[in-house]
Amino acid sequence: MAASLSPTARTTLHRSKERGRSAREDLYAILDSGVICHLGVVVDGAPMVVPTGYGRLGDTLYLHGSTGARSLRGALEDEICVTVTHLDGIVLARSIFHHSVNYRSAMIYGRARRVTDPDERLAGLRALSEQLAPGQWDTVRPPTRKELAATEVLALSLAEASVKARQGPPGDELEDYALPIWAGVLPVRMSWGEPEPDPELSERLRTPAHVAARPPLGSLPQKI
Amino acid sequence: MAASLSPTARTTLHRSKERGRSAREDLYAILDSGVICHLGVVVDGAPMVVPTGYGRLGDTLYLHGSTGARSLRGALEDEICVTVTHLDGIVLARSIFHHSVNYRSAMIYGRARRVTDPDERLAGLRALSEQLAPGQWDTVRPPTRKELAATEVLALSLAEASVKARQGPPGDELEDYALPIWAGVLPVRMSWGEPEPDPELSERLRTPAHVAARPPLGSLPQKI
Repeated sequence: MAASLSPTARTTLHRSKERGRSAREDLYAILDSGVICHLGVVVDGAPMVVPTGYGRLGDTLYLHGSTGARSLRGALEDEICVTVTHLDGIVLARSIFHHSVNYRSAMIYGRARRVTDPDERLAGLRALSEQLAPGQWDTVRPPTRKELAATEVLALSLAEASVKARQGPPGDELEDYALPIWAGVLPVRMSWGEPEPDPELSERLRTPAHVAARPPLGSLPQKI
Repeated sequence: MAASLSPTARTTLHRSKERGRSAREDLYAILDSGVICHLGVVVDGAPMVVPTGYGRLGDTLYLHGSTGARSLRGALEDEICVTVTHLDGIVLARSIFHHSVNYRSAMIYGRARRVTDPDERLAGLRALSEQLAPGQWDTVRPPTRKELAATEVLALSLAEASVKARQGPPGDELEDYALPIWAGVLPVRMSWGEPEPDPELSERLRTPAHVAARPPLGSLPQKI
């Protein structure tokens, strides 16, 4: 059953209301099929937008980084905003004004919590790892105590979130449809290239199946 | 000749200094080969990160939007941060800790200026249009006076910017290279799909060459 997102003033769309989605499943789908987010923090009163990894467990988003990173320190002092965007296509209209993009995006607002419980820290890091590189957590060397100590893990509730999307052909002015101008969508595809083995790698080591046959981005099985 | 970026406190990298680039050409290359940026503004004291289009003319970045958009109103009241990120690959290391991504990103900080001069407004919108859909400005219906009036154009100087990038194989701990674990990079490719004509389109209209043969993302000829 589709659970609704909880609307607050800033997650209520004031414009382009038809682009808003309200089902929590849409939020999960957008988050689960992404690789990086853009984390917005306020540092000395000014915004700072940093690309970074993330992971999701239920209704919690996990972020991580070095204990020394400015963006993470900013994230712990004030509210943050996390945005995940998928660019799906360029919308080519009959008029410049109606050019647009097809996209799906999720924005999450809130105050991040520093995760200190060792079990939750590990679970959060595992979620981050699975989001970036599914299957690696169980097959490579796990983090040492020292590596864990150097890593800050933050949790952000998905309670305050909004989803926006645009799909489909251009929406031109009625009188422009008669113009002899091509219109349509140029799709954007994201795909995996051929895995590139580390030059230091022993030739006997084959590319594991979870890397060689990683499902295309955007087609990940949906978690709940 | 490579001009340096002007370092300020926040564009001076404190960590991972080897990932910082200092040539202005790198900044231009990252901006010119992107489609969307993530715009960070402060609204009611909290950050808001919005995906949006942009265009570049020399050392000025142009943004636009509806005159009613909250993000643009926020952008005019305070400092902003614009980040453009290209995800190039997933870095699969022999340890969880050294997993990473290959990427190129540019961050621009500053105070946006509302563009009011009609010529600069048109030039800025043209730059935005060319960034999103090269070749369309000269071939589709131009904006009407009413459409222009509904559009806010902002200019942001590229004076305060930083560029970060990571490329290449994983950097594992020395003792981990002997582990029987595959390591390498899973490249991420962005490509154009087959153009999808608007269902309302007359069948006699062929897809224009600048759409059908649009150069791959990331390979745009560099402007200066």
